[in-house]
Amino acid sequence: MRATPSGSGRRKSTKKRRATQSQTPVTGWRIEQPEYDARVERVRGELDRRELDGLVLFHPIRMAYLTGFFHLSTERPMAVVVGRKGELGALIPLLEQEHVAKSPGVRRVKVYPEYPTGGTKHPLLHLADLLTAMKLNKSGTRLGYDSDGYLDINGYDGPNLSEIVDAGVATVRARDVVDRLRYVKSAAEVRLIRESCTWGNLAHSLMHQSLALGRSEPDISNLASAEASQIMSAALGPTYQMLSKGWGPAAQVAFSAGQATSLPHGLANSAGLQYGDVLVTYAGADVGGYQSELERTMFLGVPGKELAASFAMMLDLQQAGFDALRPGRTLAEAEAEVAAVYTELEVKEQQRHHTGHGIGLEGHEGPFIDLGDETVIAEGMVFSVEPGLYVPGLAGFRHSDTVVIGANGAERLTYYPRDLVSLTVNLL
Amino acid sequence: MRATPSGSGRRKSTKKRRATQSQTPVTGWRIEQPEYDARVERVRGELDRRELDGLVLFHPIRMAYLTGFFHLSTERPMAVVVGRKGELGALIPLLEQEHVAKSPGVRRVKVYPEYPTGGTKHPLLHLADLLTAMKLNKSGTRLGYDSDGYLDINGYDGPNLSEIVDAGVATVRARDVVDRLRYVKSAAEVRLIRESCTWGNLAHSLMHQSLALGRSEPDISNLASAEASQIMSAALGPTYQMLSKGWGPAAQVAFSAGQATSLPHGLANSAGLQYGDVLVTYAGADVGGYQSELERTMFLGVPGKELAASFAMMLDLQQAGFDALRPGRTLAEAEAEVAAVYTELEVKEQQRHHTGHGIGLEGHEGPFIDLGDETVIAEGMVFSVEPGLYVPGLAGFRHSDTVVIGANGAERLTYYPRDLVSLTVNLL
Repeated sequence: MRATPSGSGRRKSTKKRRATQSQTPVTGWRIEQPEYDARVERVRGELDRRELDGLVLFHPIRMAYLTGFFHLSTERPMAVVVGRKGELGALIPLLEQEHVAKSPGVRRVKVYPEYPTGGTKHPLLHLADLLTAMKLNKSGTRLGYDSDGYLDINGYDGPNLSEIVDAGVATVRARDVVDRLRYVKSAAEVRLIRESCTWGNLAHSLMHQSLALGRSEPDISNLASAEASQIMSAALGPTYQMLSKGWGPAAQVAFSAGQATSLPHGLANSAGLQYGDVLVTYAGADVGGYQSELERTMFLGVPGKELAASFAMMLDLQQAGFDALRPGRTLAEAEAEVAAVYTELEVKEQQRHHTGHGIGLEGHEGPFIDLGDETVIAEGMVFSVEPGLYVPGLAGFRHSDTVVIGANGAERLTYYPRDLVSLTVNLL
Repeated sequence: MRATPSGSGRRKSTKKRRATQSQTPVTGWRIEQPEYDARVERVRGELDRRELDGLVLFHPIRMAYLTGFFHLSTERPMAVVVGRKGELGALIPLLEQEHVAKSPGVRRVKVYPEYPTGGTKHPLLHLADLLTAMKLNKSGTRLGYDSDGYLDINGYDGPNLSEIVDAGVATVRARDVVDRLRYVKSAAEVRLIRESCTWGNLAHSLMHQSLALGRSEPDISNLASAEASQIMSAALGPTYQMLSKGWGPAAQVAFSAGQATSLPHGLANSAGLQYGDVLVTYAGADVGGYQSELERTMFLGVPGKELAASFAMMLDLQQAGFDALRPGRTLAEAEAEVAAVYTELEVKEQQRHHTGHGIGLEGHEGPFIDLGDETVIAEGMVFSVEPGLYVPGLAGFRHSDTVVIGANGAERLTYYPRDLVSLTVNLL
């Protein structure tokens, strides 16, 4: 019953004007098709190098990265199949048939009725048929995969990929083929992440302004998220669509408060805010499926010496993190540099996690700023920088900023104030 | 800095009173420890029957089902290990150490520093150490698993379980050991799901009252979700905690509108509502980690004959679904009965999915009301009942109700009105 998209009302009324406007492309809030095509070509280059004839991807984010087809995984399996040439294949449940049709890169679609069978056969046996049709299911074929079978989700159970291919087909773990491409972001990806930072910043500001003694974390956060998302949607206009999830606020803020902050992943606290509480916040937003991360340590009331000292050390550690991210060295080297500052400050036992993680289509993704990650830092990589201090029984102290690596080092994409005065709320 | 939970303000001031109250247990909004202990014993019974010495569970929901330890999975692997006797083992990142300590069933905790290594070794090698300490890593051991390795999530990569155990240890797929237990809900689980229905109903009511031409789906839904969650939290009091996710509204509502409804999993539409739109809604809430599902087909303005006819047929199909769910027969038989009604009504080509799915700790879980599911329907099973009609270019028609199976058949737990008059919004 919906006739026209709401954006049409803004067009000028003369025919001439309308024609002119329709010939002027507008860059939407998403990655354009040529970039998807280029990603597929780079995957094929890697398949060549590894002597793989094809690649089967079950993870929704890897499917989205290669095709622009975003979906939420359920018990109904989906997969994308990349051969060395030709069109991409996809395994799709009847339910989602039309959605994948919007992705121009995916042409060879194998539709199955239902999970567990809908009366015919298991979806992975339909995948075997697709592989056969793509000439990727005959003896001698070398087939890469991200997982050896579909995800463990929503009650799904089924055979491994290696169990449904014909005899003589070799199946090879190759999760990193796509994931390593994702490590370095394109200019278009950085633009979307930058835009995400803007709306995460708004959600954080609205939350900040709403802090009040006695109000609970979810009450403050859910309302600030809803308001920020409404403003974001109005600002970005009708080409904007949330891609990372089916519903809920596109811009999100949350925080933990009080002693709960002394645990790095403390669950949100539903008791009301109290004078003296330390907050550790989170904010982000989905733009074209891309994420960002903004976290701040805040104080309800002027902090005492002990809290202020920990806060100052946390700032030093985060600065060490920014400084350590220089292209050409490894992430392990960068992490070692931050670790040395923990030791120097004599707070090594208050460290509970490494300095940060990659960020892009997933809120956490590889590579990791970790002693065990030998990835070389490169221009275009995007990281969270968030070394934390956790003092049991007192509080936690962590800022997280999203940075992109440039020729000379890290550039901060999140710009919320980081200093103690700006982050102290005087409620009395 | 947080001194006492906010609930303490309600206590009476005399010492006598306080002592009396503290001896009177309050049933919280979650499963109590004895039920967790019983679940573990039932798993052990099944390990006996299958001649398995132990079971390794990587999925967060299965871990929560057995231990009450709820967490969000990230790139940092976690696992629970169930032996034939003794205490449960757990693999935990340093980051989450204190959280698992709150679960009394988990005593043998192996903590590792970080992913990918934090400078020592891969987390799954720490899992091997845990298995050795539990005497489950020696030749001749038969070890079940839910997945052969940790989840594919947030950039995680690593070896399979079968690759890290010692020579002579047999690893066996056994995902269904826990999942089949989850099929039948206890009285306590049904109580939580019933409570979830109440707050889903509130979120749906607030959304319903807020429908207005020109307003967009996310704007209406996000605000209704935030308001419903605030009321829910105030009503359930300080023993309530959202367990299924780290933040966001505990009660949620969403809908799709217009032609988007003709696709079963249509993404939420950000254009404003228009007169004549058909809506297909969703509402639910998290109580003790348990979910429910309430979906309604609604009309903005009195529907014409064609829409009303489809709506009436959808009601007939849903009634067939309710009637078909009788203990003692298989789900395949129930689904065949609903399928026959589609054929009878001559709308078989408008069916896009089976009648429904199990629901509990996951919004979708097994078993499935599907031609391919031979599970026998039993008292205590909880299902969504949601046969749909999808008319391309026109609209979709689907109610979803959450039902529990009793001695005589399905009892509806969701109680939002289902009739056309109640679900028609007269906006002019």
